[in-house]
Amino acid sequence: MTTIDTTLGEHTSAAPAQLREHLMELVEQRLREFLRAECDRRSRAHSRAADLVGSIADLVAAGGKRIRPAFCISGYLAAGGDPDDHRVLPAAGALELLHASALIHDDIMDAARRRRGAPTVHERHSATHRLRGWRGEDRRYGEGVAVLAGDLALVYADQFMATAPPLVDALWAELRTELIVGQFVDVHVAAAAELPVDLDLARWIAVAKSGRYTIHRPLEVGAAIAGRPELGAAFEAYGAAIGEAFQLRDDLMDAFGDGQVTGKPDGLDVEQHKMTLLLGLAMRRDLGIRDLVSSGEARAGRLRTRLRETGVRGDVERHIDRLVDEGCRAIAQAPLAAGWREELTEMAHLVAYRDR
Amino acid sequence: MTTIDTTLGEHTSAAPAQLREHLMELVEQRLREFLRAECDRRSRAHSRAADLVGSIADLVAAGGKRIRPAFCISGYLAAGGDPDDHRVLPAAGALELLHASALIHDDIMDAARRRRGAPTVHERHSATHRLRGWRGEDRRYGEGVAVLAGDLALVYADQFMATAPPLVDALWAELRTELIVGQFVDVHVAAAAELPVDLDLARWIAVAKSGRYTIHRPLEVGAAIAGRPELGAAFEAYGAAIGEAFQLRDDLMDAFGDGQVTGKPDGLDVEQHKMTLLLGLAMRRDLGIRDLVSSGEARAGRLRTRLRETGVRGDVERHIDRLVDEGCRAIAQAPLAAGWREELTEMAHLVAYRDR
Repeated sequence: MTTIDTTLGEHTSAAPAQLREHLMELVEQRLREFLRAECDRRSRAHSRAADLVGSIADLVAAGGKRIRPAFCISGYLAAGGDPDDHRVLPAAGALELLHASALIHDDIMDAARRRRGAPTVHERHSATHRLRGWRGEDRRYGEGVAVLAGDLALVYADQFMATAPPLVDALWAELRTELIVGQFVDVHVAAAAELPVDLDLARWIAVAKSGRYTIHRPLEVGAAIAGRPELGAAFEAYGAAIGEAFQLRDDLMDAFGDGQVTGKPDGLDVEQHKMTLLLGLAMRRDLGIRDLVSSGEARAGRLRTRLRETGVRGDVERHIDRLVDEGCRAIAQAPLAAGWREELTEMAHLVAYRDR
Repeated sequence: MTTIDTTLGEHTSAAPAQLREHLMELVEQRLREFLRAECDRRSRAHSRAADLVGSIADLVAAGGKRIRPAFCISGYLAAGGDPDDHRVLPAAGALELLHASALIHDDIMDAARRRRGAPTVHERHSATHRLRGWRGEDRRYGEGVAVLAGDLALVYADQFMATAPPLVDALWAELRTELIVGQFVDVHVAAAAELPVDLDLARWIAVAKSGRYTIHRPLEVGAAIAGRPELGAAFEAYGAAIGEAFQLRDDLMDAFGDGQVTGKPDGLDVEQHKMTLLLGLAMRRDLGIRDLVSSGEARAGRLRTRLRETGVRGDVERHIDRLVDEGCRAIAQAPLAAGWREELTEMAHLVAYRDR
């Protein structure tokens, strides 16, 4: 087992990114140790239980960008939180476990086959069922196990957050409910194709599903743990803009990306008629796309071709530039700890211009 | 809106059942008001959100036996908890919301069509999808919405429990994890038909999935909130026996019951090869049943007929009698508040000999 020095010593002179990376390593360690201990403990109760806990452990170990814990810890440190006081670690771990839960369940709804460069949880368990010739339907079994794995990750997330200060409770409840309701509206709109589908609706879904939960709320949780809830307004403005940029980059990768690099299948959102921000912007630019989407007759291939032809990509890149600028201006006057305005500006760029 | 008097006044002389019923009404009121407020609030964010929150509200409003809140409040009052101190109410509400979450998700895994006399959540949303001719697959849509409804109920459960005293945190985490892991082993064993399938395994599943979470843990949570965690051992012995009796009654209703009365489809467990306690006992009594099950060739119809012929029903009834006796003896010497030994004895009988 790797032992990590849990104090930084001369941290007051350490650079913001270095402080965050140090705390992020501790979060990784806690996640790893918790999931290993749970796997051992549940396996003692029943040998097969490891298959369930292991699905969560594998997904977490497979990587991912850890954006939510990184913003949570950044919110804490930017608010002047003491890096030697580890109260922020469980909250950061909880956000990653919540994300694991959301990914496992969303992948069922999207019938996604791969995640983080490996088969999705439901896909893997369905494959085991087929391979061994078990009873019943392979799809029902695999998806059932994935429902339970996502449930368990949600309970683990909560178990982590339970040790955070009580003032975080309301934020934590709100963050989870927003995420679930946002995902429902996303799934519903994609299926029902109800009018009006427009940029406002696309923006609402992007904010509810991803914007708040990825950047704004994690920053807010961190600031609250540091005892500085008054930073919420600046973090909300920053998070709204950078969250939208984050989501637009996601949409670009989905529509035009390379699955070998992103680790996700290409074109899934377009194929599944998801009302993405990208589509909202394209509809505003190109009435033909609006007609294709509104008529409910948009074939994925035709829509993707039209999206390529219509030049929306350049449009969206310029919009991302404006959002990054707007987000960074939102924290320009905020009373943050030394170096954190620059660090959050850097993070905004990393998030908005990432390639996976 | 019905206004309920929130104090009992002369409660010191009130009978145990009356005290519990009073607090149970308050729990119902809190659940109703919370779900109504959430429905309103989420609908303001997006008009369709009510479809999701409403699915939970409908299931909770449709009734159910409320066994878990009843045992939680009983544990609290039996431990001498003050009926005018309402700290136990959120915990009791949390247990009912957790149960709603488990039902919604289990019904997906079992492909169950009806619950509490109405279509299951996934069934209802799949039907809407078909009726309106929406895009994509009706099953994926309905099951996806039910996954989200169950997730949201789990978050709501947690939001209720967050206001309970911190000493309940560990119990709450354990209770939820046991439930999910138990459900996984149940689904896994039914599909994989791995040997050995025997009474011990059936008992393990019944205890993990239902016994602990239905009676033992709710009593323990109630006692902990009353500040009497030392009652845990007596409640564990009582809960283990009465929980097994509860589960056996469930199995009997499934195998031999009348769906018109129970509100559930008959024979679902038998059809889905669930390793129930009933089957465990039948296998021990009748080697033919063991062969049918072990060979993995047990057809539902054949197995049900054999179960009827083999006279296991009378066997199980006698076993239930012994369990009720054993459970009641476990609390005979426990230092409970006046009248509560008798009340818990009465509850044991109600649970073990219920008809739905």
